[in-house]
Amino acid sequence: MLSTIRFVLVHTSHPGNIGSAARAMKNMGLSRLYLVAPKQFPHGQATALASGADDLLSDAKVVETLPEALVGCEFVFGTSARSRTLAWPTSSPRLACEQIKDNLKSEIAIVFGSEQAGLTNEQLACCQHHIHVPTVEDFSSLNLAAAVQLMAYELRMATFQEPESDHEAPRDLATSDQLNCFFEHLREVMLNVGFLNPKQPKMLMQRLQRLFYRASLDKTELNILMGFLTAILQRGEKR
Amino acid sequence: MLSTIRFVLVHTSHPGNIGSAARAMKNMGLSRLYLVAPKQFPHGQATALASGADDLLSDAKVVETLPEALVGCEFVFGTSARSRTLAWPTSSPRLACEQIKDNLKSEIAIVFGSEQAGLTNEQLACCQHHIHVPTVEDFSSLNLAAAVQLMAYELRMATFQEPESDHEAPRDLATSDQLNCFFEHLREVMLNVGFLNPKQPKMLMQRLQRLFYRASLDKTELNILMGFLTAILQRGEKR
Repeated sequence: MLSTIRFVLVHTSHPGNIGSAARAMKNMGLSRLYLVAPKQFPHGQATALASGADDLLSDAKVVETLPEALVGCEFVFGTSARSRTLAWPTSSPRLACEQIKDNLKSEIAIVFGSEQAGLTNEQLACCQHHIHVPTVEDFSSLNLAAAVQLMAYELRMATFQEPESDHEAPRDLATSDQLNCFFEHLREVMLNVGFLNPKQPKMLMQRLQRLFYRASLDKTELNILMGFLTAILQRGEKR
Repeated sequence: MLSTIRFVLVHTSHPGNIGSAARAMKNMGLSRLYLVAPKQFPHGQATALASGADDLLSDAKVVETLPEALVGCEFVFGTSARSRTLAWPTSSPRLACEQIKDNLKSEIAIVFGSEQAGLTNEQLACCQHHIHVPTVEDFSSLNLAAAVQLMAYELRMATFQEPESDHEAPRDLATSDQLNCFFEHLREVMLNVGFLNPKQPKMLMQRLQRLFYRASLDKTELNILMGFLTAILQRGEKR
């Protein structure tokens, strides 16, 4: 799905960040990593922090200049924390990924600058679009791997639709008559244990009904609650 | 804006991850960090990777247990990569943050498990809602700081530049500690009346917890239920 997208890390200083970036990419289904003149690579720390994304590291393309990494690309997005003197088309990661989603058959690059300086003006000029992560203004410098993680996540979110009911099996809800039967039983037990005073009911039943309606009980839960009430009554009788 | 939200890191092994988490939080305008029994803290690596978010580290609350970190919380979200035997209400980070946006006046916790194991089932049972990041299935384990970064980013995206809007009268919701107290009382009564067999608990407590979490009880409702349980116990003793 995301096979036309390459992530390009420019002049990365810390090999650990390369590993963390690879892990973040693989988590989100991305696989194509380009490294422009990394300071140290390959490196044990990159492998350690890749934490299983070794395939991305061994497949990584290492080149000398940014233009080499961008050969064949139809869309180039550069990530930038700073606003530059010359205004440039700038989007949030989310908006940029909406645009990418509509062009998934094109070759696309997302470019990330070095830890110290981000992308230089010259490097940003190679990028048709700029992406700015909306951090707070007075603490805006993201960790490199964190920026990679956010972009990878937004790409996944834009292109992957999780089935609505992935985690929740359809619930077999209790019916109105079953609920009424439960409420009647509940009322009986509350009277029996002396919690409900029929002369001063204080809307107790209504409050509890509202609560259980809000929870939309399923049949299993209703059976548990009914069993609990029955156990309370039986225990009362035995004593 | 995000001042009612605490991030809770449980049993973190690597102090560097605590620092990276603090940086990610501060980037997105979050400030309240709770640490449950961190392996090493304070630590030079945490400070180094915080990269200027030292204030979050020095203000961090260090506690011994997860329930301590959740005292006063009305909403508790637990992050989980795994689906569990018992289906629990689960959202993507984005959906969860939509819900949080509508409840920003409540005390809210987002809970993150350890690097090795994530949140245990017991820890997840303290969380009313579960959050699952939609990673690819066969490489789903996110770096801890990356998970924190994604949640912080989604919170910022959900609340950034949102005009204040009027919502319906806020309900005075029961807090996590009050709910735990209620569950303990409920368990006691279920044992007392012979409904809960400690040798064969059949996930009864988990099912009832899930039910009551779904209902998001307010304090009045909690008091009614507690009073009912007390009346059951007292009646049992009289007979």
